[in-house]
Amino acid sequence: MNASVREQFPILSQEVNGHPLVYLDSAATSQKPRVVLDALRRYYEFDNSNVHRGVHTLGSRATDAYEGAREKVAKFIGAAHAEEIIFNRGATVGLNLVASSYGDANVQEGDEIVITPIEHHSNLIPWQQLAKRKGATLKYIEPNPDGTITVEAAAKAITDKTKIVAIAYVSNVMGVVHPVKEIAALAHKHGAILVVDGAQSTPHMQVDVQDLDCDFYALSGHKMCGPTGIGALYGKKALLERMEPVEFGGEMIDEVGLYESTWKDLPYRFEGGTPIIAGAVGLGAAVDFLTELGMDNVAEHEHRLAMYAMRRINEIEGLQVFGPQERKVGIVTFNLDDVHPHDVATVLDSYGVAIRAGHHCCQPLMRWLNVSSTARASFYLYNNEQDIDRLIDALIRTKEYFGDAT
Amino acid sequence: MNASVREQFPILSQEVNGHPLVYLDSAATSQKPRVVLDALRRYYEFDNSNVHRGVHTLGSRATDAYEGAREKVAKFIGAAHAEEIIFNRGATVGLNLVASSYGDANVQEGDEIVITPIEHHSNLIPWQQLAKRKGATLKYIEPNPDGTITVEAAAKAITDKTKIVAIAYVSNVMGVVHPVKEIAALAHKHGAILVVDGAQSTPHMQVDVQDLDCDFYALSGHKMCGPTGIGALYGKKALLERMEPVEFGGEMIDEVGLYESTWKDLPYRFEGGTPIIAGAVGLGAAVDFLTELGMDNVAEHEHRLAMYAMRRINEIEGLQVFGPQERKVGIVTFNLDDVHPHDVATVLDSYGVAIRAGHHCCQPLMRWLNVSSTARASFYLYNNEQDIDRLIDALIRTKEYFGDAT
Repeated sequence: MNASVREQFPILSQEVNGHPLVYLDSAATSQKPRVVLDALRRYYEFDNSNVHRGVHTLGSRATDAYEGAREKVAKFIGAAHAEEIIFNRGATVGLNLVASSYGDANVQEGDEIVITPIEHHSNLIPWQQLAKRKGATLKYIEPNPDGTITVEAAAKAITDKTKIVAIAYVSNVMGVVHPVKEIAALAHKHGAILVVDGAQSTPHMQVDVQDLDCDFYALSGHKMCGPTGIGALYGKKALLERMEPVEFGGEMIDEVGLYESTWKDLPYRFEGGTPIIAGAVGLGAAVDFLTELGMDNVAEHEHRLAMYAMRRINEIEGLQVFGPQERKVGIVTFNLDDVHPHDVATVLDSYGVAIRAGHHCCQPLMRWLNVSSTARASFYLYNNEQDIDRLIDALIRTKEYFGDAT
Repeated sequence: MNASVREQFPILSQEVNGHPLVYLDSAATSQKPRVVLDALRRYYEFDNSNVHRGVHTLGSRATDAYEGAREKVAKFIGAAHAEEIIFNRGATVGLNLVASSYGDANVQEGDEIVITPIEHHSNLIPWQQLAKRKGATLKYIEPNPDGTITVEAAAKAITDKTKIVAIAYVSNVMGVVHPVKEIAALAHKHGAILVVDGAQSTPHMQVDVQDLDCDFYALSGHKMCGPTGIGALYGKKALLERMEPVEFGGEMIDEVGLYESTWKDLPYRFEGGTPIIAGAVGLGAAVDFLTELGMDNVAEHEHRLAMYAMRRINEIEGLQVFGPQERKVGIVTFNLDDVHPHDVATVLDSYGVAIRAGHHCCQPLMRWLNVSSTARASFYLYNNEQDIDRLIDALIRTKEYFGDAT
């Protein structure tokens, strides 16, 4: 990425607490390039209308924009058909839909659901609650001590009783890429389906759902340069077609009687109510932006930054990094001596460096790591080596500050 | 409303098919004033961050903006507490949440759910499906021939077996204001709760949920000058506190164990996943805009327009208007001789006049009216008498066109 990429993100040119902003919290949410903000504004200033139902010009333009965005997302993740893309509020909603609709219909008492203790709560609680509703068994794949998940460990957990395996493609804390393609093959061998939480992978690497052969794949727009409040669920057509909707309203029906109703075809049966039209248009613009940069370039840039960050961070004594030293995605999770991660983040903020501190929606993982919380710096396509240097400088000062104070 | 109000909506200054746009489809979705678009842009260009979890400056600013929007919405509809406002994707999601969470927990076999045949599908199918799941009886209040609902008719349908009454405050087809306050009292007398679909009322009149004494109230931001993909559900604190979430993920949990979890307090337990942050900020700006205009002024303006439209439309021979002649809200639903409503809308569009044609997500109402579809012109604060004149002129030409053609 050259410097001109960074210049396309207006928010990054501000000062925070008297220092130029260094934004290292993209795993929580990414910033938005000007082309996405322009697309939103253009939609509202020229085309805004409700979709599908309109026979007037704005209605047609809005429908074209919305369905065009669906085609862009489908192509971006390698889906075979646009109608395999369900627009929703975000990855959380997509994972919950699979658990409620597919899960409730296909999981019985005594069946097994297999996940990992590394999952974000959004890919953990829906399965935990499904297991409780159904009297099914929730099983956890045992991670390696460094937080990686092996196919061998997955093979120990997945049996012929397994109906659903759910795993993140990339961990939002450990920054590790999991062997999703191999786990999909394993799940299918046992007659189970594989659900992938793609919230942290889609923004950062080339994704091909057909190559992975996953059955469902959930993503969030706001983590990949798109607006807040828009996401998508990919599902194999043959599976989605057999699923019942869980939300009922306009746009998703075929016939509504007083006492019985029937549903529209894919994808509309899962999009009840006025859609997130501008959000989808903004996500489409984000996908265009990422495609133009090239996802392999984005991944390579972030990998280089992560490697540089690891090298620099290892220079700081008393700083514990969680997860493997080699990592593909730009997430570095750490703790500094006995300083509480919130205090680390607060001092860094006084130097204009924005990182996250807490459990990162991964309480089971925190217990597995034997910590209550961690600090996390996460990088994206607009970050550069100077951002890492600023992080390191601020960490050294933080260490001095608390060293002096104790 | 003076002319300067209209000038605040950039989309309205365009030409469609060689004519200045006359947008009469606000009951489907409203247009957005510049202040809302500016608020969205400002949020993304200065404050964008994930909320609640952040200890850095942008995180605090985003959280303040998001929670500030919640307070604005609470005040706008007269809620007693900000935590009674659940942000979601729109009214459809709000109504579905009440049906799934409150409904599944409180409706048993043999209980009754009371609605009207005039409801939008979003306030009909969730109750229909709840009744089916639970073996409860779905009962319909009988409307007057002009589509109005009386308290007397409601009293005939509501009994001690009734657990839930659900009704729109304003019908999206008939443009009628229903006696919601009186029906709330009736429902409570029988130990039932009242759920109000506020999608068509909130944009057009002063709403006070405490005065109505309704138990739940759902609204959509995109119909009230706000962005697409944001809405809110109001619920009485005492009821919401006893309800279980239906979506699970980040931000809504207290403690997550491997096999058990507990939920946060209100409103967060119902907002799993990264919230619709910019959408809420935009809705907050829309609420500010409407408050500054004054909802009584908005209602009076629309009432005057509706009365003018009715007077002019009655001049056209062969045009059948559905619903009462006297109406409070700016919705006029009609059919023209034997011309299909879609053809009417298509010809109007050629004159730059945007109206809607179809079943308006009200198939049971269409059958009750004994039509397959209707045309609908709906007005908002940015419309004026010239828009009505343009509609009437275009309708006269449409009539001539089809008169000549047959």
